[in-house]
Amino acid sequence: MKMRVGQYLIDAIHNAGVNEIFGVPGDFNLAFLDDVIEHKDVKWVGNTNELNASYAADGYARMNGLAAMITTFGVGELSAVNGIAGSYAERVPVIAITGAPTTKVEQERKFVHHSLGEGTFDDYRKMFEHITTAQGYITTDNAIEEIPRLINAAINERRPVHVHLPIDVAMTEIEVNEAFQPTVKESTINEQVVDMISQKLSSASQPVIITGHEINSFDLHEKLEQFVNKTNIPLAQLSLGKGAFNEENEHYLGIYDGSVAEENVRNYVDQSDAILNIGAKITDSASAGFSYQFDIDDVVMLNHRNFKMNETRREDIDLPTILNSLLAIDYHNDAMFPEINRELDDHIELTNEPLEQETYFKMMQQFIGLDDVILAEQGTSFFGAYDLLLYKNNKFIGQPLWGSIGYTLPSLLGSQMADQQRRNILFIGDGSLQLTVQELSTMIRQQINPIIFVINNDGYTVERLIHGEHQPYNDIHMWDYKALPQVFGGDNVGIHEVANAQDLKHTFENIKAQGNKMHFVEVKMAQGDAPEKLRSISQVFANQNK
Amino acid sequence: MKMRVGQYLIDAIHNAGVNEIFGVPGDFNLAFLDDVIEHKDVKWVGNTNELNASYAADGYARMNGLAAMITTFGVGELSAVNGIAGSYAERVPVIAITGAPTTKVEQERKFVHHSLGEGTFDDYRKMFEHITTAQGYITTDNAIEEIPRLINAAINERRPVHVHLPIDVAMTEIEVNEAFQPTVKESTINEQVVDMISQKLSSASQPVIITGHEINSFDLHEKLEQFVNKTNIPLAQLSLGKGAFNEENEHYLGIYDGSVAEENVRNYVDQSDAILNIGAKITDSASAGFSYQFDIDDVVMLNHRNFKMNETRREDIDLPTILNSLLAIDYHNDAMFPEINRELDDHIELTNEPLEQETYFKMMQQFIGLDDVILAEQGTSFFGAYDLLLYKNNKFIGQPLWGSIGYTLPSLLGSQMADQQRRNILFIGDGSLQLTVQELSTMIRQQINPIIFVINNDGYTVERLIHGEHQPYNDIHMWDYKALPQVFGGDNVGIHEVANAQDLKHTFENIKAQGNKMHFVEVKMAQGDAPEKLRSISQVFANQNK
Repeated sequence: MKMRVGQYLIDAIHNAGVNEIFGVPGDFNLAFLDDVIEHKDVKWVGNTNELNASYAADGYARMNGLAAMITTFGVGELSAVNGIAGSYAERVPVIAITGAPTTKVEQERKFVHHSLGEGTFDDYRKMFEHITTAQGYITTDNAIEEIPRLINAAINERRPVHVHLPIDVAMTEIEVNEAFQPTVKESTINEQVVDMISQKLSSASQPVIITGHEINSFDLHEKLEQFVNKTNIPLAQLSLGKGAFNEENEHYLGIYDGSVAEENVRNYVDQSDAILNIGAKITDSASAGFSYQFDIDDVVMLNHRNFKMNETRREDIDLPTILNSLLAIDYHNDAMFPEINRELDDHIELTNEPLEQETYFKMMQQFIGLDDVILAEQGTSFFGAYDLLLYKNNKFIGQPLWGSIGYTLPSLLGSQMADQQRRNILFIGDGSLQLTVQELSTMIRQQINPIIFVINNDGYTVERLIHGEHQPYNDIHMWDYKALPQVFGGDNVGIHEVANAQDLKHTFENIKAQGNKMHFVEVKMAQGDAPEKLRSISQVFANQNK
Repeated sequence: MKMRVGQYLIDAIHNAGVNEIFGVPGDFNLAFLDDVIEHKDVKWVGNTNELNASYAADGYARMNGLAAMITTFGVGELSAVNGIAGSYAERVPVIAITGAPTTKVEQERKFVHHSLGEGTFDDYRKMFEHITTAQGYITTDNAIEEIPRLINAAINERRPVHVHLPIDVAMTEIEVNEAFQPTVKESTINEQVVDMISQKLSSASQPVIITGHEINSFDLHEKLEQFVNKTNIPLAQLSLGKGAFNEENEHYLGIYDGSVAEENVRNYVDQSDAILNIGAKITDSASAGFSYQFDIDDVVMLNHRNFKMNETRREDIDLPTILNSLLAIDYHNDAMFPEINRELDDHIELTNEPLEQETYFKMMQQFIGLDDVILAEQGTSFFGAYDLLLYKNNKFIGQPLWGSIGYTLPSLLGSQMADQQRRNILFIGDGSLQLTVQELSTMIRQQINPIIFVINNDGYTVERLIHGEHQPYNDIHMWDYKALPQVFGGDNVGIHEVANAQDLKHTFENIKAQGNKMHFVEVKMAQGDAPEKLRSISQVFANQNK
């Protein structure tokens, strides 16, 4: 069958499971965008800028398993690198497509707009090598191999890939014999690794599992839960990857975040003599600055492409394969472990005193529903929200490794577009909101109905806690936040102002009564107030910088 | 004298002529920002995000000769790469400083936030190699050499440099014997090149000069005007670099933009037999897709680091040095050349019909004052504004080579901060404004008083003209633009709505009557309307993409 390279690419992306594509038009991608528009099962979602598009694609991929975005050469793709690097760090598969000047323009080394004006055309592609797992320059001759290779690389590594697509190539017809179907790379079971883990468990008196973001990346929740149920090993989650494990499961201990973890969890993990680290990465922000007390020699690191136990290291590890084979080992843990406290705190006093962070998140614990998707921005929001106890079907999106402020607002666009039936709730602060605020406009344009809580506490609170509490660089300009939806064309958005617990309670009731619209809540809080964990971790960060 | 590396760096930057520093705080730069705040002659201007900071620094450098910005590791510096790449392409010197994790954290390969989580710390620095003229990793041992080397590289090449500054290094005291003073690299006169040019001119019957952006970069306006006055060679400017030549000078022919240039200019340049290209780059957007008709063998290319004439190429050329030595050649042109039409069109009918682009720019020609700084966003604004006839002291800022939409709004923050006494006027469209809108907040916060004209014509007009006029990807969401200043905390901004020529006239009068405040003008125009030149060039771009 004859089809244009652009058509083949879009069709392949759709066959890999993508229904919405993000990005910004530019003259080197316009003709290709025609193929996006024309595709009957794919929707174009134009963003207000390319960084926001990359964040939206990241949020979409976290819900959907894969995302794609399209920008133009130079100015477009380079605006997206921060978002793509974040997807790389946290293993989120995004196909980043650049519409580029024609092969002829490149061969003649022309000084065209969006180039550096020196006749070179490979500068930007080379920059992407550091932050993507695969890169490809599409030609009419290689399209039929390169496009499948790139999409499969994104799926198998759960990381972004970069596609350089000259616009003349996109518009050229090629012969396509069969539609693309994603192929998951077959990986052989590594018997040595399975044996080592098995022996480590057998000789342990108090084993524990720490899990994290790679379980979300590879969608291994069920496999992991099967393993836990079968072996009876208790499990703690890192904040980096919250949502990796069903928090309703009786084996769930809670969040392990080093020295700031709840006493029960902290003691149990720190005293364990076999720590199975499955798909988790112990970063500074997830461990209060590497403040774990367990013996690092008792840790088995099981990451995708990275196994480490004592002196043994292997990079040929495939996380889905190894987890599968672990299900076959013959082991049952008989050690006792603490139970998590599942009782909701019902003793919240609804005063008209200024609302405090602690009360705010206690009330949120009661507000979240069984099927909600929760997004929490780096800052007071993330450090408050990651301690929420979730239901099995909740999804949780944060970015504590990459930690780019402003990420969650566009990410919310993506996560909500991926499944419009689920209620999406965003927790964000004023400082972060300012970076990417215009994506609110795209949410209004797309008529989606998330709930957005914006903490207005006048500045960069995380930074204040780390260094320079009253320094002017941690101040921001005061906005009229609650007026934003209207300015961005949102006449039907529910607007709420919250200053105390009573207001918040009323707002919850109003939101529940009007489920069929977007809600935007401005929550005023005192400047110095912050979740206790953020205070502790900020102090650790301050020391780490000395 | 003992001082911290951070103090030395800020002091050196200040000695090089920088008084305002742009950026966004992050925990890896906070302690260094203390040194910025503490410096008595330097002001910190916090931006709403890092891309905007890079654009602001670019605008500042175009007015001031040099700029500096500070971001944090990874998330911050990567958000700025598009802006820095633009400064590289258009030769604007910006010192891009990244506050980075400590030497110890790096040596121990720790998985810290903002890293890719794999123990590597050089990924982002390597990305900057493609878009900066020099890069440096500052240590306590090399600070005293590296900091001067980097600042001097920015000044001598008029291009951005990247400074990687571990935060522990910034806070360490070193011994400084003398304060940094910038040194302009001495360059020997290239006699061969001067002779070749001299001979080319002597044998020509109709010589002409084409000039452009490098004259602005190297601040060579006076030298170039001396050369023109002395030799009597007429001169045309490219749109890329408008402002390079005094348009009041009698030797000024007008803008040369290939096939779309005014007949007089086009014919004269196309028929010239010696085309001295001084500091100009003939790009697609500056030449209606390389549509010049002169003989390319008659062109002498005189760019910084790039001389080309017939088969001779040299990369050791220093533009200031060569222009100096050209002043010494003995040559006088006796050919006749056309005079530019300097009469203002007074026959503008002030109707209440919908305002058209043509009328809009005709009226702007009468509005601009002797000392104004004019910024024109890529799109209808740039293609309308570059035909304005300027006064000697006007400055003109556009970005037609890099062409990143959204650039001018933050750039206006920078240009206005660089000289708060001059009136800055921005022409921008709705599509572009949406990308970087939040920087309006910083202008309000800094209490500067530019005049901003926003064309609201419902979409990406340039893209519509190139391809897909009625395709949904060229639509944008409608905002209430005139409400933006109030939302961003600007209670004292003059707000104006313009729908026809009468409104515009009244608005001009209101603005003149209230010079001491910021003005924000929403100008409604029809979707299909565009400056004639943009129509022609868009057609060329469409063909170039086939």
